[in-house]
Amino acid sequence: MEIIDKNNIPPETFDSGEARGIMARVLIGKANGAGNFVMRLFEIAPGGYTPRHAHPWEHEIFVHSGEGSIYSNGEWTSVRPGMAIFVPPDEEHQLRNDGTEPFVVVCLIPSGYQEL
Amino acid sequence: MEIIDKNNIPPETFDSGEARGIMARVLIGKANGAGNFVMRLFEIAPGGYTPRHAHPWEHEIFVHSGEGSIYSNGEWTSVRPGMAIFVPPDEEHQLRNDGTEPFVVVCLIPSGYQEL
Repeated sequence: MEIIDKNNIPPETFDSGEARGIMARVLIGKANGAGNFVMRLFEIAPGGYTPRHAHPWEHEIFVHSGEGSIYSNGEWTSVRPGMAIFVPPDEEHQLRNDGTEPFVVVCLIPSGYQEL
Repeated sequence: MEIIDKNNIPPETFDSGEARGIMARVLIGKANGAGNFVMRLFEIAPGGYTPRHAHPWEHEIFVHSGEGSIYSNGEWTSVRPGMAIFVPPDEEHQLRNDGTEPFVVVCLIPSGYQEL
């Protein structure tokens, strides 16, 4: 068993072009021996957002903290901590922070793709 | 895309024998079209615990809120919100609430097994 504290994982930052204010970490992935799916943590700063994009793998997202919205099909929908979001393969999506604190989500993908 | 609010999902309760004070829900699974892994939410009441058991599939756990510990190999280790836990296949494990509020974790498993 492995207990993972994000503070022991240096974040990757994405803060240019299509993404703003993102700190991203792989919490559980291939390096931990996880062979089926990958757990990543995204901390989106106030004013920040992920790229608007689509890809051939799904997301299973859990909202941990903060205030934010998700884009789908021309609309933004607010989500609250404790909510989950299923993004099917090939569907365009984007997350943004609508608040004044970090908007923190866990986002899982199947194994076999780039982990971050 | 599907946005899932736990309040729209009736919980299953486990409160006898090996488990106490558990409310469990599938947040994202086969019914949502998710074919690779399953996101479940467990709310463990104060004094509650999950069964101490092992099974041939892994867990990827994210601690959402509350105070609790996880058992592994004869020891209990405290975990805090924001931490992740990887439980490899066939490793004995158990979660318990050590606090006075619900201890809430997201626990993911690969598809192909019973979802709850």
